[in-house]
Amino acid sequence: MTAPSSAEGLLAGNRTTLEGYEARHFGWSLADGVATIMLNRPERKNPLTFESYAELRDLFRRLAYATDVKAVVIHGAGQNFCSGGDVHEIIGPLVNLPMPELLLFTRMTGDLVKAMRHCPQPIIAAVDGVCAGAGAIVAMASDMRLGTARSKLAFLFTRVGLAGCDMGACSILPRIIGQGRASELLFTGRSASGEEGYAWGFYNRLCEPAQLVAEATKLAQEIAAGPTFAHGITKKMLHQEWSMSVDEAIESEAQAQAICMATRDFERAYHAFAAKTRPVFQGD
Amino acid sequence: MTAPSSAEGLLAGNRTTLEGYEARHFGWSLADGVATIMLNRPERKNPLTFESYAELRDLFRRLAYATDVKAVVIHGAGQNFCSGGDVHEIIGPLVNLPMPELLLFTRMTGDLVKAMRHCPQPIIAAVDGVCAGAGAIVAMASDMRLGTARSKLAFLFTRVGLAGCDMGACSILPRIIGQGRASELLFTGRSASGEEGYAWGFYNRLCEPAQLVAEATKLAQEIAAGPTFAHGITKKMLHQEWSMSVDEAIESEAQAQAICMATRDFERAYHAFAAKTRPVFQGD
Amino acid sequence: MTAPSSAEGLLAGNRTTLEGYEARHFGWSLADGVATIMLNRPERKNPLTFESYAELRDLFRRLAYATDVKAVVIHGAGQNFCSGGDVHEIIGPLVNLPMPELLLFTRMTGDLVKAMRHCPQPIIAAVDGVCAGAGAIVAMASDMRLGTARSKLAFLFTRVGLAGCDMGACSILPRIIGQGRASELLFTGRSASGEEGYAWGFYNRLCEPAQLVAEATKLAQEIAAGPTFAHGITKKMLHQEWSMSVDEAIESEAQAQAICMATRDFERAYHAFAAKTRPVFQGD
Repeated sequence: MTAPSSAEGLLAGNRTTLEGYEARHFGWSLADGVATIMLNRPERKNPLTFESYAELRDLFRRLAYATDVKAVVIHGAGQNFCSGGDVHEIIGPLVNLPMPELLLFTRMTGDLVKAMRHCPQPIIAAVDGVCAGAGAIVAMASDMRLGTARSKLAFLFTRVGLAGCDMGACSILPRIIGQGRASELLFTGRSASGEEGYAWGFYNRLCEPAQLVAEATKLAQEIAAGPTFAHGITKKMLHQEWSMSVDEAIESEAQAQAICMATRDFERAYHAFAAKTRPVFQGD
Repeated sequence: MTAPSSAEGLLAGNRTTLEGYEARHFGWSLADGVATIMLNRPERKNPLTFESYAELRDLFRRLAYATDVKAVVIHGAGQNFCSGGDVHEIIGPLVNLPMPELLLFTRMTGDLVKAMRHCPQPIIAAVDGVCAGAGAIVAMASDMRLGTARSKLAFLFTRVGLAGCDMGACSILPRIIGQGRASELLFTGRSASGEEGYAWGFYNRLCEPAQLVAEATKLAQEIAAGPTFAHGITKKMLHQEWSMSVDEAIESEAQAQAICMATRDFERAYHAFAAKTRPVFQGD
Repeated sequence: MTAPSSAEGLLAGNRTTLEGYEARHFGWSLADGVATIMLNRPERKNPLTFESYAELRDLFRRLAYATDVKAVVIHGAGQNFCSGGDVHEIIGPLVNLPMPELLLFTRMTGDLVKAMRHCPQPIIAAVDGVCAGAGAIVAMASDMRLGTARSKLAFLFTRVGLAGCDMGACSILPRIIGQGRASELLFTGRSASGEEGYAWGFYNRLCEPAQLVAEATKLAQEIAAGPTFAHGITKKMLHQEWSMSVDEAIESEAQAQAICMATRDFERAYHAFAAKTRPVFQGD
């Protein structure tokens, strides 16, 4: 018996690719390391259903092991991002479910956010028009957000008799826009304009609607051309240090950055700088 | 012996109402589920005393069990919110107290903030004019804040030789306005203008002084007309998830939201939406 | 054998002064309780080297016990703050180091941030021009930051193939400017302008370049004239409460503030107020 000749042998089961993946409940494309997810039921402003929730969750979980996806863009067909859970296909059925089934549902939606936070690829939400309920959560759970002046962000759970604590909103939203603004959005369900979202740091930038997806794709391409392994570590540490003390975070970063200093991309960058050229990262 | 026929029997001791409550050290009114607290020693810009601290603490603790209060507005008489702990009635006596008594005092003031964070009702501070010291803390410890352009926010503990860490300020203020701005306010004790407070997310909105209390009351009424039980869960989770990891927060929210999906208000909202009418929430 | 007659005897080994300190790898001056550190290799935009890292770390550790320094200003010579770790003197050598040595390096840089957060003196960064990489970290790790319109803030670790998690950035930066903006800066390494940094709360104020160090010094002098012991407690609690729950933070502050109420500066402030004069703090 011989030892496997490379990690490829040992870890092959831990790797996958998404080439040829065919999404059933949303649009999907993959080019140059950038995956694009398009919520595409524009006649209803792209609501989520039990099926699209589950497929998104499974896809983001698979992304954790995908070697051919380096950044993700998520946007909506037509002029809206996402109107949230479909009133007829989701809210109606929920009204009659027994508690264990309700928890099964809320854990499934929460698992989507967990999967988005655990995959190593930075996720960029391109938000135009309506961005409401679970749609607002998907935007919030992304790493960066580009918006438009006409976008309308609403955490409208309160409007259907529910609490603002949906899929991590009470933890994540205050860290993005501040505790006071998050409290207002979650207690009132009111819409925030594009200008407000930008001033508050929810959007990283406002774009012309016609340029929105192109700008998000360009940002994703820039990230995909960067040091992919290191980007995954950045994302992991932003997640991991959420509730650490400063001292714990500093030790964790010392270890994480030392790992990155042992990568070939770090070496490539140094040699490029020394040669006064632009580094070409390979992601390893 | 028979079992109690309803939870009302079992939990009666856990419920109270505030109808007919007569406040001794501040103004108090209650209408349509909205309680209004008015700090009312306008000739001194509404300072707090040992007595008003204790009564506020006891009142907010009682609110945790009050079934007839759904939202709270707090404001100041005259053109000021609150000038903080009275120099003569509080600071003077403190100078000579032995350590156990000092801790008794700082724990009492801290208990006011804890009680404000633990009662389920959203609290809206309407801030005009001076909002200083313990007054700034009361505004900070509220869920939302409406201000005026002329409001002056000052965490002036340093000016009386104390530290900025008063009643939770080093934990709560940075989450509202950011760590750098909070550090400056706490180290220098300087006043922040209404415009600054709004740009930083301390105020949710700036109002004309003459409209301030009316706008705060309107916001409180809108919240009082919402799903009261769910609002209480939103507030609890905003508190509870403060130092949780993202993954822990998501599981906590899955459980909390599943509870809300078993309420009648959720069912009412769905039936109203299906009938294309506006839901009328009952709070249960 | 007699007991020491004062704490000075018992704790003398825990106290030091920095009078006469001569810095080897940066500029240093001390006047009226304000220490000024000037990164001074302006021809290279003030990069850090292994030696300056280590000396800064040792200096900030010593500041924890220094009785003659009450506030610190840090700035750069010429028209730049700091360009980060020197490409030739730091990045080059790192490329070939074995893992234990890499960790030794990342822990040393992390120890600088820990030392800056653990010394009791508020630190004010005066940021003009380039503020990049480890330079951006030093500004971030300060308590307050004054900037200029032309300052360029860049967490450019990604540009050299590394992760954004350097010296605590994934923990600290999001608390200063918000999670979404921090994510963009850490994933892209892009420069933020002075205006952006101010709008986001990274800078407390923008100054004219010619006035920058003077304004930072003035702010430091005001802080140095304040209640030094209490300021140290404020800084400690801002650090200590980072990952506490609200309730834990409130109890911690009750204890910390009770300690401050037993200081002479608190008494001095009360007597000054009673006499309608300005308090003169002594720092004890």
